[in-house]
This record gives sequence, C-alpha cells and structure tokens, in this order.
Amino acid sequence: MSKILDQVLSANAAYARDFGDRENLAMPPSRGFAILTCMDARLDPAKYAGLAEGDAHVVRNAGGRASDDAIRSLVISHKMLGTREWFVVHHTDCGMETFTDEVIRRLLASSLQMARLGPDGWQDPGGGGGSAEAEFVDWLTIRDREASVVEDVTRIRRHPLVPSSIPIHGFLYDVRTGRLNAVTEARLLERVS
Amino acid sequence: MSKILDQVLSANAAYARDFGDRENLAMPPSRGFAILTCMDARLDPAKYAGLAEGDAHVVRNAGGRASDDAIRSLVISHKMLGTREWFVVHHTDCGMETFTDEVIRRLLASSLQMARLGPDGWQDPGGGGGSAEAEFVDWLTIRDREASVVEDVTRIRRHPLVPSSIPIHGFLYDVRTGRLNAVTEARLLERVS
Repeated sequence: MSKILDQVLSANAAYARDFGDRENLAMPPSRGFAILTCMDARLDPAKYAGLAEGDAHVVRNAGGRASDDAIRSLVISHKMLGTREWFVVHHTDCGMETFTDEVIRRLLASSLQMARLGPDGWQDPGGGGGSAEAEFVDWLTIRDREASVVEDVTRIRRHPLVPSSIPIHGFLYDVRTGRLNAVTEARLLERVS
Repeated sequence: MSKILDQVLSANAAYARDFGDRENLAMPPSRGFAILTCMDARLDPAKYAGLAEGDAHVVRNAGGRASDDAIRSLVISHKMLGTREWFVVHHTDCGMETFTDEVIRRLLASSLQMARLGPDGWQDPGGGGGSAEAEFVDWLTIRDREASVVEDVTRIRRHPLVPSSIPIHGFLYDVRTGRLNAVTEARLLERVS
C-alpha cells in the first residue's frame, strides 16, 4: 500500500469513528446553495464559506471554470436537489494563470517524445502522459482573474438551462488572507476605465 | 443582500481573522495527490480524507464522474502541479442514482413549457430552466455505484494523456458511516459471478 493511501485510510478511520449523527443527513443540501470553485489545494470551501456536512453542493475543477461539466452539475444541483443560489469562486495565484494552451500542449507532446525515445523503442501503454489528444482540449487557462470570474458568471447566467431566478455571486478568494472579495461586472469596467 | 450571502461572508470573515501561517502555503499540493469526488453536500473530502489546506487537489462534480473536464483537471494537476497519485470517490445514496437522462430532460422540457404558459406569453429570458439543450447533455447518471467507480477509474487509466505511472484508487464513501470502502475491478467481478 502506498504511503499516501495508508495516510488517507487512517484519517478516514478516525473520521468515521466520530461520525455521530451525520449518518442522518438528507441528500438535498439543507442550506440550498452551491459553490463552484477551483481544485487548488489551498482552498477549503467548507472552511472559507462556513459549510458543515449536508449544507451545500461543492463543484470543483482546474480554475473553478464554468465548463460544460460544471454547468451539468449546477443544473442537476438546482433541478434535482433544489439549490436556489450559486457562488463562482476563483482565486489569486491560480495555477491556471501560469501557463497557456500552447505551453501545456508542448509539455505533453515532449513527454510522448521521451517515451518514444525510451529503451527498445518502448512506449508507455498509458500513452506516456502525452499525445495529440492535448490539441483537442480547451485547457481553460486564465489570463485575467477578475475577467475570468465575470466571464464564468456570465456564461452560467446566459445558459439556456439556467433559470434567471437563481442569484449567481462572483468572488475572488485571496490565498494570502483567506478573504472572499466580490467581483462584479461593474467593478471590472471601473478597473479598465 | 441575500441571507445565504450574508452568512457565507460572515463565516468567511471569521475564517480570514484566524488565517495564521496559511498565507505562506505554496501552490503545488504538498502531499502530491488529487481526489475526484461528488459535489454531494454530505461529503467533505478534507474531513473524510484528512486534508489540511495546501495538501491535495480536490475535483468535484455531479457524481464524481471522470468527465472530460475532470480529466482536464487531473492532467493539469499532474503535469503542471506535480500530483502523482489519484483517488476516485463515489458514494452511497448518490443523487445521480435517482434519475435518468430521460427524466431530467423531461423535467427541464416541462419547465420550459410552464414558462411559455406564463402571463402574457412571457418567457424567462434565461431560458426558464429548460430547452432542447438538455437533449445534448450526457448527464452521466449512475445505475450501479460500484460499476461507476470501476468505469471511471478505467476511463482515466486508459486516457492518452494520463501516464501509466500514476496509481488511481477507486472508493465508495458510505454516507451512513463516513467510511471509504475500496472498489476494485476484481471485487466487481466477484459480485457478479
């Protein structure tokens, strides 16, 4: 067993030992809202937004972007499980600001090349972490963190499966302070003018 | 300001007040792993797997499914931020087991119809939570929770951008006990034989 797996299972055993009345939690989020945020390790949405188990849906991906899959999740969250208010939370110092589609495609392509140059012309059966596949992925990198929040809130707002009755709040989480700072289209316009 | 927004911001202010040395956390996950799990409100991966801020990437969507977007996130997690081990965690009593593509499409279509039948033929500018758009979405519902874990681990394992060196562990989280139970292809085969 890997060290990581061992540590995760030990922590889980401790958590389950003191599970208490969490066994009775219902499926629909009791506080009726959902958060879409980044997978970044420094972000703990339960802590930064004050969530107990059972309170709210949490959707996370690289960047906290309003991808088709995030929108699939939010529509299910509302339509099947009753959330009526959503948050989109990106953050400062995001990894998605540090590279472009071109950079990750080049990196993945060079991994493939290394696999090809390996002993006996051996090629990684899993694809070696690289292939032309990377050319077909929109990596959803971020050039301007405030603009990305506004774009994503706007994309969700205008999506044909999203009712206009759902408030959608845009925030930037500051990884140096732990604070949620509101981002609005008005604020973005102020900044550029 | 909505009550929910007010509560989230109050909780966030309290979190930021005691932020301490978390301001110094580095971007790459310090424990070098990532978890893909469901958005379900009852799941708190930081608690069930023992994560502190900075430890690990957490990717979440409806079902914890290995969607293209989840794989985009995992590939970035590995290639740009160095994770070398991944977990796929679905769970018991998942909302994704309670409906099918057909059901959610019908529900979303009937919302649209209601909007059309509203006062003065008014139609929700946001699309009224329903449209033919739903026909084009694969909702990634789950029929068999153990099979879904195996399918998703297998999809990630075989993806051309995923190096074969990355261990991928499949688990089912039990919402009644808080325990992570391992799911392996072998176990699934045992069950059906």
